[in-house]
Amino acid sequence: MAEFDRDIALDETAPDSYAAELRPGWVVGDGVNGGYLLATLGHAVRRSATHPDPLAVSAYYLSTSQPGPAEVTTRRLREGRTLSTYAVDLVQHGTPRITALATFGDLDLLPGDIETTASAPDLPPRDRCVGAADAPDGFRQLAPPLLDRFQLLFDPGTLGWASGSPSGRPLIQAWFRLHDDREPDPLALLLAVDAMPPVTFELGRMGWAPTLELTAHVRARPAPGWLRLRHESRNLAGGMFEEDCEVWDSAGRLVAQSRQLARQPRRAELTS
Amino acid sequence: MAEFDRDIALDETAPDSYAAELRPGWVVGDGVNGGYLLATLGHAVRRSATHPDPLAVSAYYLSTSQPGPAEVTTRRLREGRTLSTYAVDLVQHGTPRITALATFGDLDLLPGDIETTASAPDLPPRDRCVGAADAPDGFRQLAPPLLDRFQLLFDPGTLGWASGSPSGRPLIQAWFRLHDDREPDPLALLLAVDAMPPVTFELGRMGWAPTLELTAHVRARPAPGWLRLRHESRNLAGGMFEEDCEVWDSAGRLVAQSRQLARQPRRAELTS
Repeated sequence: MAEFDRDIALDETAPDSYAAELRPGWVVGDGVNGGYLLATLGHAVRRSATHPDPLAVSAYYLSTSQPGPAEVTTRRLREGRTLSTYAVDLVQHGTPRITALATFGDLDLLPGDIETTASAPDLPPRDRCVGAADAPDGFRQLAPPLLDRFQLLFDPGTLGWASGSPSGRPLIQAWFRLHDDREPDPLALLLAVDAMPPVTFELGRMGWAPTLELTAHVRARPAPGWLRLRHESRNLAGGMFEEDCEVWDSAGRLVAQSRQLARQPRRAELTS
Repeated sequence: MAEFDRDIALDETAPDSYAAELRPGWVVGDGVNGGYLLATLGHAVRRSATHPDPLAVSAYYLSTSQPGPAEVTTRRLREGRTLSTYAVDLVQHGTPRITALATFGDLDLLPGDIETTASAPDLPPRDRCVGAADAPDGFRQLAPPLLDRFQLLFDPGTLGWASGSPSGRPLIQAWFRLHDDREPDPLALLLAVDAMPPVTFELGRMGWAPTLELTAHVRARPAPGWLRLRHESRNLAGGMFEEDCEVWDSAGRLVAQSRQLARQPRRAELTS
């Protein structure tokens, strides 16, 4: 079993109730990574719903999740012929951590039309991108242990923050792949949309940016291989910013889109 | 009392339970407009929460709302010092219509920083834009009675659909203002993000596009006066499309952003 599947595993403890174990390897900043939580919630809905694939998931982060046991409960709001909608909650020791709504369907049953006008991230080949292993020490201090959970090869043109020379442009791009040759699927896309550092890093604000809300749309089942991620923001204001993520698969298809509303980091510091 | 406030009015029937009357004036296509429903849900959370303003609202549309009575119930998920998060449901005759999550705060307490790189819609002056009253008959058949609920003055460059010559570009822009000199506020922004026809009209697909999910972020309290709206899509595929709306106020500030996932219209027809 691949590490990702082990780490989002669930034990059904009652109908629509699951025990999860949030693994310490997914810690970043003060808590557990939001994309990992989103994938865990998506996994619970997949177990409960009659449809296999997340089409839309909206998560509201209520408090910071910590490594350790968590209870995940799902509640059916509608089961239709082609779509199921569920509410799903993750609680630790009685404290609500994250609540979400999710509509599931079957990506294989969608029609084949594609009229995407968005363009794929313009990323250099992987051998010219920069992974955590190649990075300066300042970078490596940022996000252990999260950055050991997957291969993330950054576009050097959006990696100024790692060497203390942020570009001033709120854009970060990277290649992404899970360990263990675990191929991408819709649950992995829920992780991928929140796997990268906040784009505010490229504005020289190196603190972590707590997510208030994140909605992901999964638009197609990803082809095997590396994914390309683009994170960007257009409206930093009022102490907050929106962060859009696009995920493109190896076949050149835009397979997921997400937007989150996050608080801007308050302090300019490298860790936590 | 302005028409908009009358139409989103609520009677509290029990703690966190409200009776609404969905007015027939908001019908479009087969049901009641999604933005009007979003504003009604936002109003209910405002009544229940300790914080006055929607910051993020994510709505999942479960079935088509009809004019007539509706019950709206709110459920507190978290009340913090600066943010409250609620679940809110709208039900008609026992049938769930729409379920949402919402985080409220106080827009007046947000810091004053603005670093928006997005640009306001490039709209001609209002006297060179086109309202429903000026429009060809084909246009007027589209959306009665919804288009009588507010002033919507379309950019003629994104109005090809109204005369049978869609631009082929999924973009629609307009000036927006409520009747009765009712100035915009955060609840009106929840309406505004879903007040325009779907951008698929400009691709020549004139059917209504049912929303699966819509998330709105309110980023600032709008200044009095006209709003400018921009609707666009970048990824039409698999029978669905995402539709992003930006709302800019009279002071030139990006006050709301939304994204929805909708089904593409199946038939090329003007009505229903």
